[in-house]
Amino acid sequence: MNFDENTLTDAVLARISTDSDPRVRQVMSSLIRHLHAFVREVEPTEAEWFEGIRFLTETGHMCDDKRQEFILMSDTLGVSMLVDTINHRVPAGATETTVFGPFFVQGAPELPRWGDVARGQPGVPCFVSGTVRDTQGRAVPGAVIDVWQTDGVDGVYDVQKADGSMFCRGRVTTDADGRYAFRTVQPVSYPVPDDGPVGRMLRRMGRHPWRPAHIHTMVARDGYRTLTTHIFVKGDAYLTSDAVFGVKDSLVVEFHPHLAGATPDGGRSDVPFTTAQYDFVLAAD
Amino acid sequence: MNFDENTLTDAVLARISTDSDPRVRQVMSSLIRHLHAFVREVEPTEAEWFEGIRFLTETGHMCDDKRQEFILMSDTLGVSMLVDTINHRVPAGATETTVFGPFFVQGAPELPRWGDVARGQPGVPCFVSGTVRDTQGRAVPGAVIDVWQTDGVDGVYDVQKADGSMFCRGRVTTDADGRYAFRTVQPVSYPVPDDGPVGRMLRRMGRHPWRPAHIHTMVARDGYRTLTTHIFVKGDAYLTSDAVFGVKDSLVVEFHPHLAGATPDGGRSDVPFTTAQYDFVLAAD
Repeated sequence: MNFDENTLTDAVLARISTDSDPRVRQVMSSLIRHLHAFVREVEPTEAEWFEGIRFLTETGHMCDDKRQEFILMSDTLGVSMLVDTINHRVPAGATETTVFGPFFVQGAPELPRWGDVARGQPGVPCFVSGTVRDTQGRAVPGAVIDVWQTDGVDGVYDVQKADGSMFCRGRVTTDADGRYAFRTVQPVSYPVPDDGPVGRMLRRMGRHPWRPAHIHTMVARDGYRTLTTHIFVKGDAYLTSDAVFGVKDSLVVEFHPHLAGATPDGGRSDVPFTTAQYDFVLAAD
Repeated sequence: MNFDENTLTDAVLARISTDSDPRVRQVMSSLIRHLHAFVREVEPTEAEWFEGIRFLTETGHMCDDKRQEFILMSDTLGVSMLVDTINHRVPAGATETTVFGPFFVQGAPELPRWGDVARGQPGVPCFVSGTVRDTQGRAVPGAVIDVWQTDGVDGVYDVQKADGSMFCRGRVTTDADGRYAFRTVQPVSYPVPDDGPVGRMLRRMGRHPWRPAHIHTMVARDGYRTLTTHIFVKGDAYLTSDAVFGVKDSLVVEFHPHLAGATPDGGRSDVPFTTAQYDFVLAAD
């Protein structure tokens, strides 16, 4: 009893049972200490405290099957990227990881070499190829690369559309030499959903909601750590201010422009197109 | 670009515009620093991080017009009490404050001296009286005391019942000598709602959800700071382990037992009853 401003935190910590799960004890102790330190530092008025309660409540009410506003909050405050970094400390030479994001879907179509990921979506035709290797430089055959991205004009993912169609996703597999190749449309930059409480939070901080154009990839092969990362389009206006802090220099790739004509898959394009090349390096499991 | 585990926090902080509101800047900077420090300290796995996202989402979905699970989380983690303490640093001699809680309702009935707060609810009859004074010991006449509490048997507030009736609330006013008096039923200890995510959190920490028996009071008079506090019942089993950390020694009051017979309001009781006496001291505005 009779906790004061200085002793209250210890009183709350002391209430955690020594019989509770050690990890629960560790996480809750740390959470309580940091929450209290935050409150001590900013000394919220009662009105500000209640504004915080309302903000969290509204964020919860925004979450449903299609929208996860708490993940968006975690992403835009850099927490998701920090968790990603902590969980994927890769050995030197291996490809760096970045945030998984909310737009992955199981069951994307299996595609042959140079198969079409875009499935008829509008945008600049784009040919992406490269290799998957291990940290000793050896080819990794049979690696499965899940690819997902926005269309090439509006910057939307298929799951953001109401019609339920699947587009701009596919799976390609590396050949005996560790090579992969697919065609698609070049992705464009897009804003994260900003019509909810997180959008309001960003505006109050004077921040924009944009992500630079990128292709999501997840590379998996037995014996290696699954690699979740992005290929970013070099020159994008938002590379230095990604709303979710996902950009790493090593993941920024030149998308070379070409005039209409012969394409890398042996065909022809009637319109200008781009080519990009990226070599993934997997860390052993 | 190219933030690593160590530089990411500074990158997120640097993104807050210097044109934004200074208070927003201060609060968000502190929040980001403490959130990141928490993540660095506990190094959550991706599964644990997602469990946190789910916990917050479920807490949001639990909130409606009748239930505020985020306030309950704030209360049970000691945050509400810390905010209360920071906002009510009273001068020496003034009555200490405690948490407001979620059960206050506007428009409680005005009662005469010794008026009945309980309005027919079951429980041990109880007579509460005392004075309201300033820190120089002078009587404060015309102070309005809002009183609210559970019934005397089940430990529930009127707003927790579906029938919409109002009970166990009232307003009494001090007389020319600063005296007040009301009758009621002695409140009983009760658990905070523990059928939601906060209840699960308490169980995982090995904590119980009980609050010791108390009468809520809010004392208001022009020229003085409004005082929100509780009168706790001495001897309650949960005084040293209040689920919301609201107990202060100075607020614990003896409820004296009496056999059936003459009561302080000049009447008689056919059953045993209790009497309690508490003097409030208001700080000047």
